[in-house]
Amino acid sequence: MAIPRSAYPAPFNTTRASHVVLTVGDLGASRAFYCDALGFVISDEDGGALYLRGIEEACHHSLVLKRSGEAPVCERIGLRAYTEDDLDRAQHYFERADLPASFVDAPHQGRTLHVCDVVGTPLEFCASMAVRPRLVVQFREHRGACPQRIDHFQVLAPDVQAACAFYCGLGFRLSEFIAPDGTDDLMFVFLQRKGNPHDIVFASGAGPRLHHAAFSVPDAAHILHACDMAGSCGFGANLEYGPGRHGPGHALFAYFRDPDGHRLELFNTHYQVMDIENEPVRWNLSAMRQRSWGLPPRRKWYQEASRFLDVEPREPAHKANPMTLEKFLAEEG
Amino acid sequence: MAIPRSAYPAPFNTTRASHVVLTVGDLGASRAFYCDALGFVISDEDGGALYLRGIEEACHHSLVLKRSGEAPVCERIGLRAYTEDDLDRAQHYFERADLPASFVDAPHQGRTLHVCDVVGTPLEFCASMAVRPRLVVQFREHRGACPQRIDHFQVLAPDVQAACAFYCGLGFRLSEFIAPDGTDDLMFVFLQRKGNPHDIVFASGAGPRLHHAAFSVPDAAHILHACDMAGSCGFGANLEYGPGRHGPGHALFAYFRDPDGHRLELFNTHYQVMDIENEPVRWNLSAMRQRSWGLPPRRKWYQEASRFLDVEPREPAHKANPMTLEKFLAEEG
Amino acid sequence: MAIPRSAYPAPFNTTRASHVVLTVGDLGASRAFYCDALGFVISDEDGGALYLRGIEEACHHSLVLKRSGEAPVCERIGLRAYTEDDLDRAQHYFERADLPASFVDAPHQGRTLHVCDVVGTPLEFCASMAVRPRLVVQFREHRGACPQRIDHFQVLAPDVQAACAFYCGLGFRLSEFIAPDGTDDLMFVFLQRKGNPHDIVFASGAGPRLHHAAFSVPDAAHILHACDMAGSCGFGANLEYGPGRHGPGHALFAYFRDPDGHRLELFNTHYQVMDIENEPVRWNLSAMRQRSWGLPPRRKWYQEASRFLDVEPREPAHKANPMTLEKFLAEEG
Amino acid sequence: MAIPRSAYPAPFNTTRASHVVLTVGDLGASRAFYCDALGFVISDEDGGALYLRGIEEACHHSLVLKRSGEAPVCERIGLRAYTEDDLDRAQHYFERADLPASFVDAPHQGRTLHVCDVVGTPLEFCASMAVRPRLVVQFREHRGACPQRIDHFQVLAPDVQAACAFYCGLGFRLSEFIAPDGTDDLMFVFLQRKGNPHDIVFASGAGPRLHHAAFSVPDAAHILHACDMAGSCGFGANLEYGPGRHGPGHALFAYFRDPDGHRLELFNTHYQVMDIENEPVRWNLSAMRQRSWGLPPRRKWYQEASRFLDVEPREPAHKANPMTLEKFLAEEG
Repeated sequence: MAIPRSAYPAPFNTTRASHVVLTVGDLGASRAFYCDALGFVISDEDGGALYLRGIEEACHHSLVLKRSGEAPVCERIGLRAYTEDDLDRAQHYFERADLPASFVDAPHQGRTLHVCDVVGTPLEFCASMAVRPRLVVQFREHRGACPQRIDHFQVLAPDVQAACAFYCGLGFRLSEFIAPDGTDDLMFVFLQRKGNPHDIVFASGAGPRLHHAAFSVPDAAHILHACDMAGSCGFGANLEYGPGRHGPGHALFAYFRDPDGHRLELFNTHYQVMDIENEPVRWNLSAMRQRSWGLPPRRKWYQEASRFLDVEPREPAHKANPMTLEKFLAEEG
Repeated sequence: MAIPRSAYPAPFNTTRASHVVLTVGDLGASRAFYCDALGFVISDEDGGALYLRGIEEACHHSLVLKRSGEAPVCERIGLRAYTEDDLDRAQHYFERADLPASFVDAPHQGRTLHVCDVVGTPLEFCASMAVRPRLVVQFREHRGACPQRIDHFQVLAPDVQAACAFYCGLGFRLSEFIAPDGTDDLMFVFLQRKGNPHDIVFASGAGPRLHHAAFSVPDAAHILHACDMAGSCGFGANLEYGPGRHGPGHALFAYFRDPDGHRLELFNTHYQVMDIENEPVRWNLSAMRQRSWGLPPRRKWYQEASRFLDVEPREPAHKANPMTLEKFLAEEG
Repeated sequence: MAIPRSAYPAPFNTTRASHVVLTVGDLGASRAFYCDALGFVISDEDGGALYLRGIEEACHHSLVLKRSGEAPVCERIGLRAYTEDDLDRAQHYFERADLPASFVDAPHQGRTLHVCDVVGTPLEFCASMAVRPRLVVQFREHRGACPQRIDHFQVLAPDVQAACAFYCGLGFRLSEFIAPDGTDDLMFVFLQRKGNPHDIVFASGAGPRLHHAAFSVPDAAHILHACDMAGSCGFGANLEYGPGRHGPGHALFAYFRDPDGHRLELFNTHYQVMDIENEPVRWNLSAMRQRSWGLPPRRKWYQEASRFLDVEPREPAHKANPMTLEKFLAEEG
Repeated sequence: MAIPRSAYPAPFNTTRASHVVLTVGDLGASRAFYCDALGFVISDEDGGALYLRGIEEACHHSLVLKRSGEAPVCERIGLRAYTEDDLDRAQHYFERADLPASFVDAPHQGRTLHVCDVVGTPLEFCASMAVRPRLVVQFREHRGACPQRIDHFQVLAPDVQAACAFYCGLGFRLSEFIAPDGTDDLMFVFLQRKGNPHDIVFASGAGPRLHHAAFSVPDAAHILHACDMAGSCGFGANLEYGPGRHGPGHALFAYFRDPDGHRLELFNTHYQVMDIENEPVRWNLSAMRQRSWGLPPRRKWYQEASRFLDVEPREPAHKANPMTLEKFLAEEG
């Protein structure tokens, strides 16, 4: 199979990963975890929802937690379009692609377009949000890991090749990918718009399911401080993987499960990728095994992920791509 | 005076601050300072020039040091256009604006377009460079401050308003600016394309002259480590200002003079700014005085800057904007 | 003049710098500075006094702030004797040396012995204090600089030679000293009992006056975070010197003035010195000038110091040692 | 069983953990691991041995690696006596206790006394070493984890109670200990002379065997940098446990195996413990389970340890204390 090419110019201007909407059972428990231990900032709490942002974010929210009596799910992944015109172009583009797209009202956001991507991931695009003060240097307000901002999502999907082609069609660039030695079967793709390695990552697995949302932290030491604060606040056992250093993407990371089982990655070490000559970086199985360092994750890191609301996961069916994330990484471990 | 508006879409796609070309008297002394003490990576040394990059940069160079028998100058500031088509559109755009623009050959770069901006700053645009390995996780190769990548330039110019209007016309966005209380006279403008506060900054003063080029470092502690390495390598007296915390831009910073007197800023603490609702942040004189913390710079930080090759600096002439950077910041100090 | 020799075994066992007692005008302002901004922990507030400790200290207090209507002074410097027997031996030793020593009651301390040292510094020795929980890993309670523990005092004194001889007679070891080139006139002596470079430092100047009390912080980055928190809490202008790196002692430091003008050093980078073969390290004037790095302090850092209660400072009189700290360091600056 | 009391005054003055002597198969491999990756400083390489020290140590060595054709072992653990007189008092003390003690020549050390402790651990005491420059601020010489100095040893022993009583008899103080709920059976004892939690630690297990030697690093971030450098130098798989946060002792830690299988702990977060009122801190099984955070170690961390030269390990025999370290910690895991 071939590596898809990015559309340039893009059919409409998507700028970045924007936010994620999760349902939870107990907003108080969520606040203890996300705010008291990890340092997310509360923008609003209304209508049974908690709207959180990172310390440097001027946008109203990057993490929405909605109280629900049902099993916890991810409602939607949010992406930013640059202008209102881009939203209209997006709707037009999706409808031509037979993907029903409709505008809805979402609190604290501008016009919001709902659509599912080609593998069934529920998305929402907006071009603006209410503005809140950036707390970059309001050090009195900093807590825990000092999460700066949302960086990316990772989604498990049964057809990574299709997902990659879809997002490249929207103008996303492929920064890195994993394929088994000797093939071009995409198992893991890092796709980006904002000029660093990832806005959205797809990994082969039963899905679509949300594996994690990732937030950046200022310094390497904040990864340790996040763990220390989690321990200090009674969430030490929520650490599921790390601290460790990724091979692909190079991030220093720690993964936590929140009180409802949603997974969060805190990481450090970005790199900038915005030049035309930057080709996608290929990692094969043996290179993956040269992972820098780190103890193996707890088993459920491979196995568990958040379901999307009303979306039944499908197993990978593509004959040429039978390995799931779990099998793949288990070999690596 | 009014705040200029950004052209959208841009007449051509400039993506980021790319590189700076400086002349120096002794490449060995430059290498001792930039590489041994501060940790820049050598991409090539040929034809009397040293080509340096930061540890995460895949581009061939972000800092070019050319040996010269003359007084040290800045030859040019480099910006990146995204594609070769963007370069052609740029040439067309500049010529319509009566700014002569011509393609030249520049080592290790693709087609390179030379032009001077509206205040006389010599620029060069290219759309690609030779590729070198990113050393993000090649920790054995890391030294000193571990400069990651070039981030921005600061230029002293006699007409900041004109400079701001020119770059906004190219699609740059104004992220922050300083104006005296009660006026809109721009004294200090932060202009950006890549989604953080600055690619190029203009400050009011005799110019155009290059005040500094700025490189980001991974963690706050690297600012201290840069100072320690400078001290350890005999460059302790080259520290001119800092460590301290800026008001505008929020950066934690340290400024050094290189052996030829060119000024370098190492800094930490970015924030992402890429949403349509992000209005330019205004700082007035009294707000500037609420600088977070830091001892005053050495006096020459206000007074000295690198001249551009064959460009005679002009004093600020605009009646409504008589204060230079020096006077302005001296009041603040 | 000769370098004094340490008494071994000591006449009584002094273990470490223990605490300092300062008077202040407004306990609320002191709390805002020491606790909210810098992160000291409150052990008690009673009887018009605030008892503070560092995050790792199990002792009740290392910093006592007493409300007073008079000009702020330092009441006493506290040292620890190891056992009650050591206190009795101390009293006996001082009385034989014609230094009146008497036991007093001091809140939250065991039996407390008051005495003045040979240059007139008011001291108090105790062998125990009330015990409080160490907060080393109570990360939820950490704030600001996270001061760990008291480390040392610096006292200006008119006769450094006499002070050095006195403390060496108590079994203190001289770890480092400064003397002008070509002489053994002691201008600056680092004296220690606890196995790192200093418990008490004497510098030549009008005195005795308390130049500063010093507290250690966990990581280099906490020095920056202390500055950021000071700035964030409105105490940015209280930074008087630093961040910088000392020559003698090697510390990474920042000096702050508290709301009453008492000076505090926060520092990092200890070294262990407890072996018999470790000779005192001599720094002469020219070596001092090779200070690693750092901008000059504000002028008052040289000139101002806290007076001790009811102690009139005397000017240095020793003919062979005419330079005061101010002159000495001004030459260095 | 009762907690032993510390002898005061001590029969002779032991000041600190001093050094460890290990045999290895290939000095080149050892140097790549200890020096290139982790940053130990070479003091000498002679007579088939590599003498290493930490960056702040003025003593000639804290880690001696001797080339050997046999299976790797620990030859001896080194402790410091303060003076030559203390060495003589030590010999007298041991002989009265029926522990044969004899002086030997050891390179780069003063007179050296060999003796085995009550559980059979081979010790050597010396009162001085050759002096080398401290490299605290020679930042150009810093590499990897920047190990500062040796801090402590951990020994597995079949009778922890006996070991504890023996070292308390030498004047060591018990800072922390682990005992099963409801008993005083000592399973894990932290013993110290130098004023922080440990110089030597004993844990219940087949022994005596050396579980690890521990070196402190300056900042929390150096723990991560040690892992990164290990990964970057091909030793990523040598990370056996961590980064994580201990319960007892509070250290932030990472454990590595060297190329011969000897175990090294790098850690951060000391606390000072030198006051008479500091009682030993008791941890019971359930408290141990409240370990702050961290993924489980690799299994061999529980099972493997370095044998001492010519010492056959014995299984714990004490009826009241049947749990080995492995069983104990496995329950905790």
